[in-house]
Amino acid sequence: MVKPIKKRSQKAGLPAGTLVHIGEKKVERATIKIIVYDQESFREIDVEQLETHDDASVGEGTVTWININGIHDKDVIEKIGKLFSLHPLLLEDIMNTDQRPKMEEHEGYLFIVLKMLSSQGVPNLIRDEQITIVFGHSFLISFQESEPDEFEPVREMIKNGRGRIKRMGADYLAYTLMDIVVDNYFIVMENLGEEIEGLETELIKNPKQETLHSIHRLKREMIFIRRSVWPLREVIGDLERRGSVFVQESTSLYLRDIYDHIIHVIDTTETFRDIIAGMIDIYLSSVSNKMNEIMKVLTIIATIFIPLTWIVGIYGMNFEFMPELKARLGYPMVMGVMLVIGILMLFYFKRKKWF
Amino acid sequence: MVKPIKKRSQKAGLPAGTLVHIGEKKVERATIKIIVYDQESFREIDVEQLETHDDASVGEGTVTWININGIHDKDVIEKIGKLFSLHPLLLEDIMNTDQRPKMEEHEGYLFIVLKMLSSQGVPNLIRDEQITIVFGHSFLISFQESEPDEFEPVREMIKNGRGRIKRMGADYLAYTLMDIVVDNYFIVMENLGEEIEGLETELIKNPKQETLHSIHRLKREMIFIRRSVWPLREVIGDLERRGSVFVQESTSLYLRDIYDHIIHVIDTTETFRDIIAGMIDIYLSSVSNKMNEIMKVLTIIATIFIPLTWIVGIYGMNFEFMPELKARLGYPMVMGVMLVIGILMLFYFKRKKWF
Amino acid sequence: MVKPIKKRSQKAGLPAGTLVHIGEKKVERATIKIIVYDQESFREIDVEQLETHDDASVGEGTVTWININGIHDKDVIEKIGKLFSLHPLLLEDIMNTDQRPKMEEHEGYLFIVLKMLSSQGVPNLIRDEQITIVFGHSFLISFQESEPDEFEPVREMIKNGRGRIKRMGADYLAYTLMDIVVDNYFIVMENLGEEIEGLETELIKNPKQETLHSIHRLKREMIFIRRSVWPLREVIGDLERRGSVFVQESTSLYLRDIYDHIIHVIDTTETFRDIIAGMIDIYLSSVSNKMNEIMKVLTIIATIFIPLTWIVGIYGMNFEFMPELKARLGYPMVMGVMLVIGILMLFYFKRKKWF
Amino acid sequence: MVKPIKKRSQKAGLPAGTLVHIGEKKVERATIKIIVYDQESFREIDVEQLETHDDASVGEGTVTWININGIHDKDVIEKIGKLFSLHPLLLEDIMNTDQRPKMEEHEGYLFIVLKMLSSQGVPNLIRDEQITIVFGHSFLISFQESEPDEFEPVREMIKNGRGRIKRMGADYLAYTLMDIVVDNYFIVMENLGEEIEGLETELIKNPKQETLHSIHRLKREMIFIRRSVWPLREVIGDLERRGSVFVQESTSLYLRDIYDHIIHVIDTTETFRDIIAGMIDIYLSSVSNKMNEIMKVLTIIATIFIPLTWIVGIYGMNFEFMPELKARLGYPMVMGVMLVIGILMLFYFKRKKWF
Amino acid sequence: MVKPIKKRSQKAGLPAGTLVHIGEKKVERATIKIIVYDQESFREIDVEQLETHDDASVGEGTVTWININGIHDKDVIEKIGKLFSLHPLLLEDIMNTDQRPKMEEHEGYLFIVLKMLSSQGVPNLIRDEQITIVFGHSFLISFQESEPDEFEPVREMIKNGRGRIKRMGADYLAYTLMDIVVDNYFIVMENLGEEIEGLETELIKNPKQETLHSIHRLKREMIFIRRSVWPLREVIGDLERRGSVFVQESTSLYLRDIYDHIIHVIDTTETFRDIIAGMIDIYLSSVSNKMNEIMKVLTIIATIFIPLTWIVGIYGMNFEFMPELKARLGYPMVMGVMLVIGILMLFYFKRKKWF
Repeated sequence: MVKPIKKRSQKAGLPAGTLVHIGEKKVERATIKIIVYDQESFREIDVEQLETHDDASVGEGTVTWININGIHDKDVIEKIGKLFSLHPLLLEDIMNTDQRPKMEEHEGYLFIVLKMLSSQGVPNLIRDEQITIVFGHSFLISFQESEPDEFEPVREMIKNGRGRIKRMGADYLAYTLMDIVVDNYFIVMENLGEEIEGLETELIKNPKQETLHSIHRLKREMIFIRRSVWPLREVIGDLERRGSVFVQESTSLYLRDIYDHIIHVIDTTETFRDIIAGMIDIYLSSVSNKMNEIMKVLTIIATIFIPLTWIVGIYGMNFEFMPELKARLGYPMVMGVMLVIGILMLFYFKRKKWF
Repeated sequence: MVKPIKKRSQKAGLPAGTLVHIGEKKVERATIKIIVYDQESFREIDVEQLETHDDASVGEGTVTWININGIHDKDVIEKIGKLFSLHPLLLEDIMNTDQRPKMEEHEGYLFIVLKMLSSQGVPNLIRDEQITIVFGHSFLISFQESEPDEFEPVREMIKNGRGRIKRMGADYLAYTLMDIVVDNYFIVMENLGEEIEGLETELIKNPKQETLHSIHRLKREMIFIRRSVWPLREVIGDLERRGSVFVQESTSLYLRDIYDHIIHVIDTTETFRDIIAGMIDIYLSSVSNKMNEIMKVLTIIATIFIPLTWIVGIYGMNFEFMPELKARLGYPMVMGVMLVIGILMLFYFKRKKWF
Repeated sequence: MVKPIKKRSQKAGLPAGTLVHIGEKKVERATIKIIVYDQESFREIDVEQLETHDDASVGEGTVTWININGIHDKDVIEKIGKLFSLHPLLLEDIMNTDQRPKMEEHEGYLFIVLKMLSSQGVPNLIRDEQITIVFGHSFLISFQESEPDEFEPVREMIKNGRGRIKRMGADYLAYTLMDIVVDNYFIVMENLGEEIEGLETELIKNPKQETLHSIHRLKREMIFIRRSVWPLREVIGDLERRGSVFVQESTSLYLRDIYDHIIHVIDTTETFRDIIAGMIDIYLSSVSNKMNEIMKVLTIIATIFIPLTWIVGIYGMNFEFMPELKARLGYPMVMGVMLVIGILMLFYFKRKKWF
Repeated sequence: MVKPIKKRSQKAGLPAGTLVHIGEKKVERATIKIIVYDQESFREIDVEQLETHDDASVGEGTVTWININGIHDKDVIEKIGKLFSLHPLLLEDIMNTDQRPKMEEHEGYLFIVLKMLSSQGVPNLIRDEQITIVFGHSFLISFQESEPDEFEPVREMIKNGRGRIKRMGADYLAYTLMDIVVDNYFIVMENLGEEIEGLETELIKNPKQETLHSIHRLKREMIFIRRSVWPLREVIGDLERRGSVFVQESTSLYLRDIYDHIIHVIDTTETFRDIIAGMIDIYLSSVSNKMNEIMKVLTIIATIFIPLTWIVGIYGMNFEFMPELKARLGYPMVMGVMLVIGILMLFYFKRKKWF
Repeated sequence: MVKPIKKRSQKAGLPAGTLVHIGEKKVERATIKIIVYDQESFREIDVEQLETHDDASVGEGTVTWININGIHDKDVIEKIGKLFSLHPLLLEDIMNTDQRPKMEEHEGYLFIVLKMLSSQGVPNLIRDEQITIVFGHSFLISFQESEPDEFEPVREMIKNGRGRIKRMGADYLAYTLMDIVVDNYFIVMENLGEEIEGLETELIKNPKQETLHSIHRLKREMIFIRRSVWPLREVIGDLERRGSVFVQESTSLYLRDIYDHIIHVIDTTETFRDIIAGMIDIYLSSVSNKMNEIMKVLTIIATIFIPLTWIVGIYGMNFEFMPELKARLGYPMVMGVMLVIGILMLFYFKRKKWF
């Protein structure tokens, strides 16, 4: 199950800006992929080349995209930080995976933290991964926690020149990456939607204590998703409305599109929450209904047979002077009387709609 | 039942602006109807004519209305898009029926997405259809998902010159279409209101487990309606308050009217939600009341007869020395004692108001 | 019980501005009363005179007040509408009693819709009536749904020259009418308050299933009152804060007073809602308490007598070799043992505080 | 118990500004105390002197404080109103104790309505009293509903020249009076806090139906306090932020202090509400726990002895051919079998953790 | 358990600005530590020196930090107050530990009140301590309630010249202190998170009445933490957004970082509240599930054996004419019939999924 809080007590007392990795270590070694592209060209380079290459010399419209998978390695993060002169607090944030999605505008670049979500299997296992995107006019650095590289399709798209991505700047690249993150939310929501449907069928057919536990697990996962998506809304909303020097007019429209998607995801989360709340109500009512059924069976049987047992008990008494005992028709008459009583009671329960 | 989310995972990873139809395919072939009208004239044309006809040549006050039923055909959408130079993202939105109602102002036109709702039968089956309206100074394009064409009456109205619609521009036409959508909300609410009343009667007379399921279904439908109507409020509110170059002063008053209607629908949704919540409470309390009734019957019978059975059991014992057994009046006296005990207990339960 | 929605489906598809009466027809014929007054004079005239009389000729400070009881008559409404050149949409609103309270400022007049509430009997029967007030600098038109005329006292007040009403303009008259509406809210709240108190007593003494239904009815009525009063707050608040050309400075203070009253009514509604919610909790807890009582009685009786019945059953067995049966003291000893067991059990239940 | 609404129906239909006392008459006769002071001097005068004394003749910095205990006397209120030319609507408000706390700025004075709260005994009896404060540059009039005079300590303080009150103006005097009102809120909260603690202990030790009633009474009192304090927050907040010509810069800081206190009281109310809600949950869970206990006892006894009774019943049958009955060890063997069954069942219940 | 309100009734009626210690006295004597540092130097001085040392003589960039542990000593607080000319109301606030976190900007200094939280053991014992920070351009005074001194590590850091703290001003020192407070919130949240996990396991394995009490205790602690952290958000948010003359541009970024942390803590509190609410639901459902189990056992046993007991009772009757009694196979046949009935019933319960 998703944890609502990660261990960060190890950081208490350290000076601000100290680099400590908080979270699970998901890959052994950080891998770095760098591509440089403009409308015409596409080139893959490696880190050493990056250090020597001069940012000013590249032409207008050239974008350098550095993607890092694995953020636990302090040295790598520090090196990148120095190269693009990122603020120490930001480097700290990149390595601390217990972050809320946020956006900060700094001199020379925009800094965005997002949460990538994925879910697998039934019951769904929601996993989250922190994505950090830093981009300026001509570069973009993206940090992922683990392999596989979710952004590989984008790199392919650029290589093959599909879509308008090669014609546009780093801001459009940032949009494309964020779009992938948001598209993943839809997939997670779809999976959860299917699980909810399954649980609803189970709920009507044969509700068990485990069903309730599953419903509660879903509820918690919804809380978790909410926490990941809700702040993102503000992030993208701010970016679209207030604009930024790093975002061109033409990209702004795409941001509005992504904003609509996020609102849609949030909307669905709320709807799911309402549905889940209703499922809990149905579960509880089924349980008390079942209790009712049991009580009815008990009451019908007990109410019919307890008085009858008393009657047979009467004629089991050993009094010497009980004239009925000697009567020839005593036995069949008592049996008849009991039959009548039993039938009357059944009628009574029938009228009360007990069965 | 209405689904809270539609399959859109097929879109993940595609470049922005790729046209993919999301949703159910409701008609086989898209049908297109085009009319051109101004205060005096009225003409129906077909698509080929549209391509050749020059927008600039038509006089001031002439409105071209293109209505498309069926949005799954990528070619049709693209053709319309090119003709009126609509942005690719908008075309994408038109084909994706999993949209929230929204309004966007673009250069040359306003873009509005709405949800048409309809309900049929008892229990009500709520169906939704996505309506997209794009309009500029002299044209309006409306997209519907399916037949029958809900806007046919408006076309009739224009043809016959009823109301003020022929004298006014494309903005008033847009208002008229939106008014039809909102009027349909009232019909849906009326139907739901009647179903709620029916359920309330059922609830007081004979609540069953199925009643609860119906109440929960209504609750979910209310959530769904809320989702469709709530954002529309903002859309129309924005349009009315901030105005737009595409909306004339004289139409603004009509928008305020439609805005009032939407608020009214939302208000009613909230009221229904409150009523439904109260119905669930009543249901649960009926169930526990019924349990109480059952327990009372069981307790009355058991409490009277269990001690009496014990008494008859005593005189069924086979001890040799039980003087009562030989007494002449032993039998009638024991019977009398049991009668007294039974009557006393009945009095006790009566005083406790158990029956 | 109050209906949450009125039939308005008959209007669907009609052009905007078509006059259709929506709601119950409460009087047979519309009655119209017209008075003209200024600081010195007071005159009653009838409709024919109104048409011929020239508004311009009347002196400064003269107020013409037209009151219409009954709004189902399309012709009357249209006539008034033409005389004061009211917008068709407003006439439509006047005839549609399924409106939210609202205010609109038009050229030449202010348009205000309110809900008059009244309650009668125990249980309270809340009835609502739509009041529309249209006023300009020198005239006021008020529309009521039914007789009796709630504004008669105001007419008397003007006739007798009591209070400051004759010295002031149409805006003060509007205030006076609204004040009557709001005063009626207080009366309704008082009645409901008394009913709530009665229910609380019932709840503690002898809660029945009907008590719960009454509580839920009150809850629904509270929802209904809320819906009527809440939007009024905004209406008056807007009028007071933003002002209007039709409202003089001296009247503004009176609007603030009425605004305070509305806030007070809303406050009380909220308090009542909270109290009612608490009452439902108490009811449910009483029910489960009662169940507890029943279970206790059952358990005490059954737990004492079931084992005892087993004991007497033992000595009812027909084994040949049961030495106790021949013992002289067998019978009294068994009886003694059973007495002891019974007393021990009573002690146990006493210690458990079961009675 | 505190009433959520006071009788004000007697006012319906009266012209605005008519003086009617609404609320309980708490003192027989209104008593009036007047003091005039500045930095050096202190003088008590009586009402007759007040009328003759000329406001203009008094030096800069002189403050006249008129305190009235008892507000039901229309003549007294009217006299004061005329002397300081207060608006008729304000006089109406002073006499109507069913007011929300509020502040109004008029020409020449500020008008503030507050609620003084006090609580006594366990269970706490919350009483409220309406305090009205009217002050201008050189005077302050305070209205209380009843004796004893809560502001006597302030008069003493002025007489003895303690604190900075004598050096400062009427605004600081107003602050001091409001501070006393707010200090009383803390005392009420403390008392309620103690009662809550007592109830919590009772809840864990021995919850009874009465405990629930007490909790609900507390809940209602919390609603009542909320209603009295919440609007005050806005009143003081407005005064501090927007300032007023009647409030000097130096007093503003003290208003901020009082504002913090009000926020603190509101905060505590919310906390208490949360705690009370939790207490209700615990109560309900205790009740259902108790039911469980009872059911367990019943089930253990019944489940053990009902089968055993059947067994002894078998050997009570009168068949001629029952070989066991003649067996020498029949009786002890049956007893042994029953013992074994009983013990096995006890083990079963033990394993199920039923006792 | 944490108290929602502290005794402050002793203050009622005292003039504003009177110094009274409210809260628990946590140390015997106040200890004061003073350090003076700039980029190069570091000096510890004691109180006497402080009085003689002239603030103006120290160079630009020199910071004097006075830390006081223990705030119950009126004389100490007054002395410090006089030295740095703090307003009497602030001194009052410093000594009153029943404060909400807040910030006030005064001439010459900023005044900040915070709550330090700590938790120990399982179940967690949350303790709070009020921290007051007053700082201007070249000095900072911090007040703590008790030993140990939580700020000792900062003093060490300054002494050893670690981090950037020595290079920066009093505002950065204030940030560092607040950062320590906020870091402690994370530790508290971690501890609570662990306790919640423990309770969840207990809840699924073996829920007891005590589990519910623990859950409710956690809920109350969450309320308490919320109260401490929520207002802090506003404090830091204000400081960061609006800025202040006492906060340099370079520090502002660090405040944003701390602001993010606070939001994160609040977020986690909300998540915990949701989780706790879910746990209560699960508890209640487990209890009613258990009841169901008990009822099933009772019903199965009673329903099988009550009719069988009636049958054996029949053949225990003493009628003279009961032919079955004489039949050779009477006994085994009755036994057979009862066996069949018992098995049929078991099948019935099996099909109903009762076991």
